[in-house]
Amino acid sequence: MERENRLIQMLEIDVPIIQAGMAGGVTTPELVAAVSNAGGLGSLGAGYMTGADTEQAIQTIRTLTDRPFAVNVFVPENPEIDANVLQQSFDRLEYYRNELNLKEEIPTSVDSPFEDQIEVILNENVPVCSFTFGLPSKDVVDRLKGNGVILIGTATTVQEAILNEAAGLDLIVAQGCEAGGHRGTFDVPFQQAMIGTMALIPQIVDHVSIPVVAAGGIMDGRGLAAAQMLGADGVQMGTAFVTAAESGAKKLHKQAILESDEASTVMTCAFSGKPARGIANAFTHEMEKVMPAPYPLQNKMTKQIRKEAANQNRPEWMSLWSGQGLRLSREESAREIMERVVHQYEALLKR
Amino acid sequence: MERENRLIQMLEIDVPIIQAGMAGGVTTPELVAAVSNAGGLGSLGAGYMTGADTEQAIQTIRTLTDRPFAVNVFVPENPEIDANVLQQSFDRLEYYRNELNLKEEIPTSVDSPFEDQIEVILNENVPVCSFTFGLPSKDVVDRLKGNGVILIGTATTVQEAILNEAAGLDLIVAQGCEAGGHRGTFDVPFQQAMIGTMALIPQIVDHVSIPVVAAGGIMDGRGLAAAQMLGADGVQMGTAFVTAAESGAKKLHKQAILESDEASTVMTCAFSGKPARGIANAFTHEMEKVMPAPYPLQNKMTKQIRKEAANQNRPEWMSLWSGQGLRLSREESAREIMERVVHQYEALLKR
Repeated sequence: MERENRLIQMLEIDVPIIQAGMAGGVTTPELVAAVSNAGGLGSLGAGYMTGADTEQAIQTIRTLTDRPFAVNVFVPENPEIDANVLQQSFDRLEYYRNELNLKEEIPTSVDSPFEDQIEVILNENVPVCSFTFGLPSKDVVDRLKGNGVILIGTATTVQEAILNEAAGLDLIVAQGCEAGGHRGTFDVPFQQAMIGTMALIPQIVDHVSIPVVAAGGIMDGRGLAAAQMLGADGVQMGTAFVTAAESGAKKLHKQAILESDEASTVMTCAFSGKPARGIANAFTHEMEKVMPAPYPLQNKMTKQIRKEAANQNRPEWMSLWSGQGLRLSREESAREIMERVVHQYEALLKR
Repeated sequence: MERENRLIQMLEIDVPIIQAGMAGGVTTPELVAAVSNAGGLGSLGAGYMTGADTEQAIQTIRTLTDRPFAVNVFVPENPEIDANVLQQSFDRLEYYRNELNLKEEIPTSVDSPFEDQIEVILNENVPVCSFTFGLPSKDVVDRLKGNGVILIGTATTVQEAILNEAAGLDLIVAQGCEAGGHRGTFDVPFQQAMIGTMALIPQIVDHVSIPVVAAGGIMDGRGLAAAQMLGADGVQMGTAFVTAAESGAKKLHKQAILESDEASTVMTCAFSGKPARGIANAFTHEMEKVMPAPYPLQNKMTKQIRKEAANQNRPEWMSLWSGQGLRLSREESAREIMERVVHQYEALLKR
């Protein structure tokens, strides 16, 4: 197909599948390299990593593959910090800290690794950089493009897609409301941007000329074929790779995805201060009515709780990010996932 | 395609497109007949009609087409009526009644036209009957199937699809969260069943053997082709037909859909007591925090308000039901819509 080739040609890959740059340790260098070696585009989810850690991960990826890959970064935000809200959120989490035997200080500042990461991406000649939570500045776009880096933006509405194209991004991941993890919404309140993939893709495709990559609820070859029928040039899959053998997701996280169904996820701001989709558990339920601290402060405050909950075998307090396609998840290697998706896709197009 | 033929063969139609049985006057006999005459399956949305009105509409449809068509009915519910909640909801609507010069009594009882409608469907030899808001009883299923009526159920989760198949329904409309109007959810709280079409269809297809019809966000040939790639046998489209020339939707309703975008809808219980998707306006906003009376009492209480708001040119108080594909709506005849969808679909499959 003509449109399929736009993504494949631009990214110099074999299969129009991007593995989502999920932050928080899921996207090990092994996962990124395995996806790229299987013909797709692996992505390092560097959102919460330091510049130095990002650099080291990139160098490890290079030892595992000579194929293109992407680094995903979070466009930084400067939340207004209300000391009262911060204190209340911190106090509200005391119960979990006590139960898990954690001693922590209240965080007061926000340091973004963004600028350091951009330098690393330039120095390491990373071929592709993807952005979440907003648009990079003109300066960042110019520096990266000047170095030949291909830029992927995230959009959850038609207007956000138009803004991405106007900012000079090379292609757009259109994130439907089925998607797991954080919403990429940056232009409107997130509730207004909960558009299903089926409705979102054709409306975005009609309003931009750069390639569009569909994300949200896509788990297999049926999803890839459907996305292309809607006008997308390819797909980005996250949840499908969380359960991969090479994924760094906690065992309890993988298990929860493999054992849950399509009706088990919820949108929550409880873990990070930003809306994200994950499997509902005691934490999302108990924190439902609590106003969280703004992102990324809430994320800092719950980081040790989530980590220690995993150590202590308490999935009810972990962030179990997942999209809505859970019944389609499989315990396979990244290569097996890629081959299964492509095989099913090709069989469908031949019918 | 093989799967496509299951729906076409079962319903004796030419094109695997069902026009949704939208209640409230949208589905005029002219619209139903035009869709059926163009090779699809038109549906009379009889949910709020009396048995006698249903009978008359069916007879009018018969004068306009000799092709198969469906009648959609609402499976009745017996809400617990709390006099206090009822009074509060009624009082809360006083402002709108005053502004619109309406004098009304508080409704106290719920009469369902369901049994009368089943008799009419049997007497008139209606070829297809579709159900919303739950499963028909075994008795109703047996009587209709004994008369050769083909039965269509509605599911918003995999479990609801399994229940539909077990109850003897012949095919399933799988309603994704993009869909406009009322949620068909009957097995879980509706928030748990807001599954995007892209994720819902393949998961349902994997768990039932009867044909599945995709609904939610499907507006054109791209949506039809995508739905089939996901494993659906065809599609049901609602919003796409609200703006049809033959549709009985109020002019202000059609206009709102044609002029709004994908980020303009909201889920609301304010109009009927049941969650439904429509274009956000002053009424949905002002009633956001108000506990409505249970369906169908809230529907009774707001009926004259909505009707009179349309008469007085006040779209801000009307129920502007719509799915999330608004930018893809067109002001065309039903036949033009059908032909455009099929043409685009065929072009996509030929690529």
